[in-house]
Amino acid sequence: MTEGQASISEVLAHFVANTSWDDVAAQAHEAKRSILNFFATALGSSADPAVTMALATLAPFGGVPACAVIGREERLDPLGAAFVNAISANLLDFDDTHLETIIHPAAPVAAAVLALAETLGCSGRDVLTAFILGVDIECRIGSAVSPGHYARGWHITSTCGVFGAAAAAGKLLGLPAERVAHALGIAASQSAGLVENLPSAAKNVSVGNAARNGIFSALLAQSGYEAAPRAIEGPLGWARAMGDEPDLDRLTRGLGRDWEIASNTYKPYPAGIVFHSVIDACLKLRTKFPIEAVESVTVSGSPLLLARGDREVRNERDARVSIHHCAAIALLLGKADVAEFSQATVFRPDIAAFRRKVRAELDRALPDGASRVAIRLQSGQMLGETVIAARGSQSDPLSDGDLEAKLRAGLRQGGSSWDGERIISAVWRLDELADMSSLLRHSKPAAARSGAR
Amino acid sequence: MTEGQASISEVLAHFVANTSWDDVAAQAHEAKRSILNFFATALGSSADPAVTMALATLAPFGGVPACAVIGREERLDPLGAAFVNAISANLLDFDDTHLETIIHPAAPVAAAVLALAETLGCSGRDVLTAFILGVDIECRIGSAVSPGHYARGWHITSTCGVFGAAAAAGKLLGLPAERVAHALGIAASQSAGLVENLPSAAKNVSVGNAARNGIFSALLAQSGYEAAPRAIEGPLGWARAMGDEPDLDRLTRGLGRDWEIASNTYKPYPAGIVFHSVIDACLKLRTKFPIEAVESVTVSGSPLLLARGDREVRNERDARVSIHHCAAIALLLGKADVAEFSQATVFRPDIAAFRRKVRAELDRALPDGASRVAIRLQSGQMLGETVIAARGSQSDPLSDGDLEAKLRAGLRQGGSSWDGERIISAVWRLDELADMSSLLRHSKPAAARSGAR
Repeated sequence: MTEGQASISEVLAHFVANTSWDDVAAQAHEAKRSILNFFATALGSSADPAVTMALATLAPFGGVPACAVIGREERLDPLGAAFVNAISANLLDFDDTHLETIIHPAAPVAAAVLALAETLGCSGRDVLTAFILGVDIECRIGSAVSPGHYARGWHITSTCGVFGAAAAAGKLLGLPAERVAHALGIAASQSAGLVENLPSAAKNVSVGNAARNGIFSALLAQSGYEAAPRAIEGPLGWARAMGDEPDLDRLTRGLGRDWEIASNTYKPYPAGIVFHSVIDACLKLRTKFPIEAVESVTVSGSPLLLARGDREVRNERDARVSIHHCAAIALLLGKADVAEFSQATVFRPDIAAFRRKVRAELDRALPDGASRVAIRLQSGQMLGETVIAARGSQSDPLSDGDLEAKLRAGLRQGGSSWDGERIISAVWRLDELADMSSLLRHSKPAAARSGAR
Repeated sequence: MTEGQASISEVLAHFVANTSWDDVAAQAHEAKRSILNFFATALGSSADPAVTMALATLAPFGGVPACAVIGREERLDPLGAAFVNAISANLLDFDDTHLETIIHPAAPVAAAVLALAETLGCSGRDVLTAFILGVDIECRIGSAVSPGHYARGWHITSTCGVFGAAAAAGKLLGLPAERVAHALGIAASQSAGLVENLPSAAKNVSVGNAARNGIFSALLAQSGYEAAPRAIEGPLGWARAMGDEPDLDRLTRGLGRDWEIASNTYKPYPAGIVFHSVIDACLKLRTKFPIEAVESVTVSGSPLLLARGDREVRNERDARVSIHHCAAIALLLGKADVAEFSQATVFRPDIAAFRRKVRAELDRALPDGASRVAIRLQSGQMLGETVIAARGSQSDPLSDGDLEAKLRAGLRQGGSSWDGERIISAVWRLDELADMSSLLRHSKPAAARSGAR
C-alpha cells in the first residue's frame, strides 16, 4: 500500500465496525461448534496446575470479579478471566485449528469475548458476531504472514490472537472504525510469544496475554490511546519486524464473503494437529497383528511433521508433539484421549520402550498433515497404512455430536462441577439469548449459583 | 552454546541471584543519578493525558492500591503502578539512555523495582541492587542483539526492558537462580513493542508492559511457571525470531566486573538523543547573527540521524525526533526544554516556517550522535558548528546538580504537589533507608500524606 491508501488497520477496522449480525448469521453454526469445542478443552484443563497457578498469581491484582473462570468457582475481572480461560482452552493443544496457519483461533478470541461480554451484558448475537469477526481478523493476518512467521519462531496463536481479541473486543464495545483501527495498532505493540517456549508453561503466558491484551488494546483505544496508522505494515512495523511482509491480497481477499471460521477444525486427539494422521494410521493397523510381534515402526511425513515431532519425550508437553509417543499409544493402547498423554502414561515403561521402536523419516511427497506408517514385524512381514486426511480435518470433520461428546469428556477430565448439558444447550441456542451471561451463570450447578454474584 | 552448557537464561539468572549489595555498592551513585532522572521525567509527565488515560483504563482492574503513582494522588496495585510509572518516565523520551543500544534503561526497570519494593517493604539497598542488576541484564541482552534488533523495527527499550524488569523483580522477590532463569524465559514470551508505533501512544503501552510484565514474569516463576531453557537463544527462540543471533561474548563479557549502569547518560533536552548535538550546535551559533538574516540551515549527520530525524512534523511526538524542529527552536528560542516541544510551540507559525528552512544531509564521516550545522545568511555568509559529543553524553555528562535541577523543572512542568526536595534527598540517601517505601511516602506533601494509607 502506498501513502494515501487506507492502512491495513483501517481496512480491517472498517470491516469490523460495519459488519452486523445479519452479515455473519450464516456462520453462526460453525461459531457455535468452535465455542463448544472451546468449552470442552477449557473444562478439561480447568483443574490443571497451570490454571491454578495462574489464578493464584493473578488473585491479588484483580478488580471486581465479574467474570466466570470456566469450570471453576473463582471469578475474576475481565482481563484476568480472559487470561486464564485462554490458558485452559489452549493448554493441551486440544483446541480448534485453522489449518492454513495452525492458529488455534478460539482460545484468545472466545476467552476475550466471553469475559468482556459477561461484564457488558451483551446478547448472544453480539457474542457470535464479535467472535466470528475476531477469528476472521486473526486468521487473515496470520495467513498473510504464513508460513514464514511461524517458521521464524513466532507462536502464531499468541502473536495473531491478540489482533483477533482486539477486534472482537472493539466490536463488543461498539467502537467506531477509527478506534478499532487504533486498537489493532496497539495490539501490534503487544504481540508476543515464541515457538521455543511451546514445551513450557511460558506458552500459556503468551496465549493468555493474547486474550487479555486484546481486550486491553480495545479499552485503551476507547480511552483515547492511538497507534501509528501503519503499525502492521509500515517499514518499522509488526509484519517486517516479525519477519515477513504481509501478503496484502490474502489479507483482504473475499473480506465479508469468505469467512475464516468456515475452515475451522476440531481435534479428536489432544496432540499436535499434524500427528493426527499418525494416530489414525496406527489405530487402523493395530488390529492386524499382536503388539509383541512388532520389531520397528517407521513414520514418514512432510518436513513439518518431522520438524515438530521427531523429539525426545521428557514430559507430557513433549508427548503431545511426539511422533514416537503418538504411534506408541495408538498401537499399544488403541486410544489417544487425554489420559494417553498424561504423565502417568508418558512414563509407563512399556510406552517408553515402544517409543524407542519408532523412527521418523522424511517423505517430501507427503503433504502437511498426512503420514505413512510402516510396521516391520519380527517375522520380517511389513504392514503399512497411509492417511492423507486425518479424522477432524476439513474433509472428515467431527460431527456436532462428536463435539458434545468431547465436552462431556472434558468435563469428566477436569472434574468440574459445571453443568455440561446446560452449556451444550446454551451454546446451541446462543443466538436466542438476550443476555449471554446467562450462558455462564446457568452453566454452574444450582448450589454454586446460589452463592455467586 | 551447545547442549549441556548453561543457557543464557541460566548464566544471567545465576549472576542475578548471587550478586549482593557489596558487589554493586560502587555503582550505587550512578544508580541514584539514574533514579533521580527517572523521577524527574515521571514527575514532568505525571499530568499528561497519556498518563491520565492509562490510569482511567486500569482503574477498574486493580487489586489493593498499595503503590504510588509518581506525581499523583492515585495509588495502584504493583502491576498497574509499574505500567503507569514506566509510561510517565518515558513519555517524552527525556529519560536516561544507554548509548550503545539506545535503550532507556530506567523506565521499565525502576518502575518495576519501585512498585514491587513498595509492596514488599524492601530496603533502599535492595532497591539499588535490583535496579543495577536489572539495568545490567536489559542492556547486555540489548547490546548482544544490536544494532540489527532496533533496525528491524523493535523498540528495544520495550523488548529488552521486560528482561531487566523480570531480573530485578526476581531479585527483589529473592528467587533462587533456577526461578530467575524461568522468569527471564517467561519474559521472552512477553517481549513486544514496535519502532513504527513510536510516534503514537501505542509506544507507551509496550513500555508500560515491559515494566508490568517483568514483575508478572517473576511472580509466575515464583508460582511455579517454567520456560524453555533456551527461550532466548534457542533455534525458535527470542533472538532469532527477533532477527539476530545474540553475540554471546558481548552478553557475558565482564559480567559482575563491567556494569552497564556505568555508561548510562541523562538528557538535557526532551528530544531523541541523536538530536542533542544538533541543539548544542544551534545554541552555540545563534548569538552570532540576527535570526531574520537566516536564509537556510543544513544539518549533516550519520545515517541514524537522518533515518530518525528527517521527517514531517505533525505533532509533538514528531517534533521530539525532528532535525528540523530541534534546529528551529534552538536557533529561534535559544532553549530546548519541555515547553519548546509542547503542542503550542510546535504549531507556532514562526516555528513551522523556520522548520521549512532546515535541510538534512547525510555525512557518513560523522559518528552517530554527532552533527554539523551550517547556516547560510541572506548575505551569502556561511557559519558552521560541529558537535561530536553532545551535552549529556558520556564525555560531557550532566552533573548531580543538573539532575536535581532537572527534577525541579519536571515538578514544575507536571504541576505535581509532590515534594521534590524530599525526593532528591531521599534518593541520595537511598542506601541508608531500611524501608524504601518511606521514599515514596515522604515524597508527598504533608496534606496528602495524612490522608493516604
